[in-house]
Amino acid sequence: MSEKMFIRLPTGETLEAVKGENLLHALKRHGVYLVASCGGKGLCGKCRVNIISGKYSIKSKGKLEPDEISSGIVLACQTYPEEELIIDIPKESKLVIGDIIEISRAKYFSDLFRSLNGKISPLLRWVTLEITPPTLNNNIGDLERLKKAIEEKGIKGMSFPHEFITTLADSLRDAEWKVNFAYTDDHKAIFISSIKDKKSYGVAVDIGTTTVVVYLVDMKDGSLVDVGSTYNSQIRYGDDVITRIIYATESGGLDDLRDKVVNDINNLLRPIIERHSIEPEDIESAVISGNTTMSHLFWGLNPAYIREEPYTPALNTFPLWDAETAKLDINLRSPLYTLPCVSSYVGGDIVAGLLASKMHRNDEISLFMDIGTNGEIVIGNKEWLITSACSAGPCFEGSGIRHGMRATNGAIEAVKIDQRTLEPVLSVIGNSKPIGICGSGMIDAITELFLSGVIDQKGKFLMGLDTERVRGGIEGPEFVFSSDGQRDIVLTEVDIENIIRAKAAIYAGISLLLKKVGFTHSDVERIYIAGGFGNYLNIDKAVIIGMLPDLPKERFILLGNASIVGAYLCLMSENMRKEAEEIAQKMTNIELSVSRRFMDEYLSALFLPHTDIGLFPTVGKLLRNK
Amino acid sequence: MSEKMFIRLPTGETLEAVKGENLLHALKRHGVYLVASCGGKGLCGKCRVNIISGKYSIKSKGKLEPDEISSGIVLACQTYPEEELIIDIPKESKLVIGDIIEISRAKYFSDLFRSLNGKISPLLRWVTLEITPPTLNNNIGDLERLKKAIEEKGIKGMSFPHEFITTLADSLRDAEWKVNFAYTDDHKAIFISSIKDKKSYGVAVDIGTTTVVVYLVDMKDGSLVDVGSTYNSQIRYGDDVITRIIYATESGGLDDLRDKVVNDINNLLRPIIERHSIEPEDIESAVISGNTTMSHLFWGLNPAYIREEPYTPALNTFPLWDAETAKLDINLRSPLYTLPCVSSYVGGDIVAGLLASKMHRNDEISLFMDIGTNGEIVIGNKEWLITSACSAGPCFEGSGIRHGMRATNGAIEAVKIDQRTLEPVLSVIGNSKPIGICGSGMIDAITELFLSGVIDQKGKFLMGLDTERVRGGIEGPEFVFSSDGQRDIVLTEVDIENIIRAKAAIYAGISLLLKKVGFTHSDVERIYIAGGFGNYLNIDKAVIIGMLPDLPKERFILLGNASIVGAYLCLMSENMRKEAEEIAQKMTNIELSVSRRFMDEYLSALFLPHTDIGLFPTVGKLLRNK
Repeated sequence: MSEKMFIRLPTGETLEAVKGENLLHALKRHGVYLVASCGGKGLCGKCRVNIISGKYSIKSKGKLEPDEISSGIVLACQTYPEEELIIDIPKESKLVIGDIIEISRAKYFSDLFRSLNGKISPLLRWVTLEITPPTLNNNIGDLERLKKAIEEKGIKGMSFPHEFITTLADSLRDAEWKVNFAYTDDHKAIFISSIKDKKSYGVAVDIGTTTVVVYLVDMKDGSLVDVGSTYNSQIRYGDDVITRIIYATESGGLDDLRDKVVNDINNLLRPIIERHSIEPEDIESAVISGNTTMSHLFWGLNPAYIREEPYTPALNTFPLWDAETAKLDINLRSPLYTLPCVSSYVGGDIVAGLLASKMHRNDEISLFMDIGTNGEIVIGNKEWLITSACSAGPCFEGSGIRHGMRATNGAIEAVKIDQRTLEPVLSVIGNSKPIGICGSGMIDAITELFLSGVIDQKGKFLMGLDTERVRGGIEGPEFVFSSDGQRDIVLTEVDIENIIRAKAAIYAGISLLLKKVGFTHSDVERIYIAGGFGNYLNIDKAVIIGMLPDLPKERFILLGNASIVGAYLCLMSENMRKEAEEIAQKMTNIELSVSRRFMDEYLSALFLPHTDIGLFPTVGKLLRNK
Repeated sequence: MSEKMFIRLPTGETLEAVKGENLLHALKRHGVYLVASCGGKGLCGKCRVNIISGKYSIKSKGKLEPDEISSGIVLACQTYPEEELIIDIPKESKLVIGDIIEISRAKYFSDLFRSLNGKISPLLRWVTLEITPPTLNNNIGDLERLKKAIEEKGIKGMSFPHEFITTLADSLRDAEWKVNFAYTDDHKAIFISSIKDKKSYGVAVDIGTTTVVVYLVDMKDGSLVDVGSTYNSQIRYGDDVITRIIYATESGGLDDLRDKVVNDINNLLRPIIERHSIEPEDIESAVISGNTTMSHLFWGLNPAYIREEPYTPALNTFPLWDAETAKLDINLRSPLYTLPCVSSYVGGDIVAGLLASKMHRNDEISLFMDIGTNGEIVIGNKEWLITSACSAGPCFEGSGIRHGMRATNGAIEAVKIDQRTLEPVLSVIGNSKPIGICGSGMIDAITELFLSGVIDQKGKFLMGLDTERVRGGIEGPEFVFSSDGQRDIVLTEVDIENIIRAKAAIYAGISLLLKKVGFTHSDVERIYIAGGFGNYLNIDKAVIIGMLPDLPKERFILLGNASIVGAYLCLMSENMRKEAEEIAQKMTNIELSVSRRFMDEYLSALFLPHTDIGLFPTVGKLLRNK
């Protein structure tokens, strides 16, 4: 076995691999990026490649099915070349450069920013100072001279870290006393530079329990440079925040969780930075939006008391700390703004989402829902805001669902089942071969299975149907949505049970919160739906399964990932950061989970659409008309 | 040669030495401290021990004289045992535990503090907070809960470092919500502790160009716990600030100089801390007083522009940085206050000295002089203050003088010469065998040599005197003050020339500064003299050599080391720190060194007492009466 081997791609390109290096890593080194949501741990099964010829060894087969294995499919992250390999990379395994869906939102971002009257004022501010050089008659200290020039610009109360002062005397003279001075939002001196019109970038980060999204923004004009997203690598320690908190209290657990998510962000940024020939030093600010637990873990703060009654976070409002403290691979002095949280289970992501929705500026009573790994709900208007979390679980983001995935290329996003033949027609994101099913696809699928009589009102498969689509699987009955001879995409009875539990938790939360403030569903004039699957959600079908209240369709607005939009807004402007803080201050948090009434509401909602069909007049009519 | 050897002291005590370890180090490891002003580099010649028997090797003989070497005297820092040694340690080589002279000032300190109406308010403040524990109805974040409790005490604008937050949740619960909260003068949160009435110490540090003095203070009542002093190890790179600045601009020079002085302080603190069984963590604040260059070097800041016209320091007013940044071996979170400087050559030590003198509070016109390594002068009253530095050089601190030393045990502090026999009578600090001559002894000696006709008005030795005390030495003529058969103490013509230059610079500075503000010497109603030799200075004789103006003796007040007193005051109280800042603000700095008139004044003063004897009526009368 030689020390160096080669990998030949179908394009004819030949890449060099080093002994002991896995295929995923070797390809990445040569700029060929594969989807690897789990970070190359053999867990997500996304980095599948086809070995056409050559010898190799395999560490793990992961979730590959027997027929895939026999046809030469391997997981690149688990495969070690032992001689020259000729490989083929299936389309679904290739990482799309940027994220087409997110990039298409660029105009929405700038339009929204404008509609909010946002003024560009980054966390790191630059001001040009023309300082009078010292003379024998005026030879005060350099710092005192700089302070005077700063105060003449009307900027007061600057603090000067030791590091800044160590280079001050030389920097001032190098710049010949005409300096560009940078300081943070909270008036900490950061840099002096002689260069004018230097590049300046910022990063908006949405840390979800399931996914991490990064936006690179040109701070000169707010334009979106690129986007990256991946699964949150903390997933290996559990799908929900509770299991992560438990792991965080184990020895080394907190550091481990922190490193995982920080590495995810750094790993997303690295190829973007390379692609656009950006110096990491030119990324001068960042905004972090995440739920309360994610925000704690990102900063390495003990989240233990979030889980214990009376559910208190270490903090809700985060000071500006720097990139070095966060261990982010951008300019180490960059200030990082963390979206303020409201309570242990209503975090900065919800505050960010609300900011993006603008409901806090309106008179009408609105309902804001973020259906991500958890389900958070806000009800209110410009006068008042009431909020709560309901443990919906991460299934709509693909977690805990056999072939679940995020709403990216290859995901089944919509399903139509012929009620006679029970044959499904699938709509797949990117019009490619289906590789999984995302949140909106799940809701569609359950609705169709329910309306076609494949499953009952409790989500259980009916027996003796005349179709081969329903079969017995490892976990019990399952419905086969697609099969290409290599890999089947199914929805199992266990999957359906999980989804019904999630939708019940969300509906119960909405109902109880409305009762708390003395309103009914029909009083809600606007419903904003945020979350990874938001863009593809079929409202009618979400009403049919009883996840959303039975209200006129025009009242619903899909926001998609509103957390990252809010993070972008806060990255751009001080006004937006102030507005986010006002939102967090205004929100009254209700602890639904400790309420016995919540359990009653939840149990009533564990049904398609609900045990009280009177709450769903449209669905009742539909079922009667069948 | 074995790996381990033994050192036997005359007391019978036997200590173990390790191969390759010098004697100084071996003794220190066993708690036997020798005087080693140079830090064990073979330069100061102070760590002399007598080898009675046993084999050893020597790296350098340093400044030992041939008869010393032949009688078995070695420098402990240059001596490596090769088998069991029996040694004797001369009294003058033993480090006195504490510093008797400084400790005797303890009452003066507390009296002064009281007379200034100082209130104890350290840089690190403690406040006890009784926080209402969280409940389900009030489960805001721990930080928000803490902030509320802090604000209820009337304390606003607290900043919270990341490190503080990482332990917050557990600290609050460990203390059961009754916490002692510590924060800095500039409102940075530092600690939370459950312990009440914990010990709290502070350190006042005077960094002189020649010497470093450390005071350990009990912050509960301001009492002096212990004192340490040593030569500034930077001396190996030059005696004055200019040579140090030049070395700082060489590669690695700045770091080297910084490490040297920081190590000096740490080395002074270590035995004190051990002696009093104090935990370094309990030292929670420190104040640094030094001239502008010393302050820059202590903080690792480039002092290059101090030396270049128009003589600008990087900064005069130092922010509060912490012990970790300073690399001080005390509690790493301790805030460090640096006395504010006025200009490149009038530093925080002068501001500290002025604070201790109280002249800035009085109506009468006073003159403040600090005669240390440099000579700094301040003239003024409570309305105005004018200041300048005159390059007096470090000779009064013992540097550049053959047998020069600081005013500690063994120093000749006063001299009387019989005008007939030319035999001297010496007064030695600690009534011990003389081991050198300190600043006040030098002034005495020159006066006596001048009045006895041994030297002329230019400081040159007269020829053909009937005494063996005057002899030809390595550097030309010299006067032998003491001789015990082992080691002679002399003053050479080169020494005398250096001393006359220093006194001329000081006198010229006073004269010119008075002329600048339109006053004459006789307008000065009070003269404060600070500096290492201050306590022993014979005013009459300092007037005779023309160092001090010829004014009534009762106008002179000797302050001793006023810089450390000012540092102590600032360590104790916020009021004192504010007052120090007001003093620094009020002082108008005059650059004498660039004035041609200064050179004229200086040249006129290079004479005993002065070329214009009319300025010294008392001395003129004395000379006429001879």
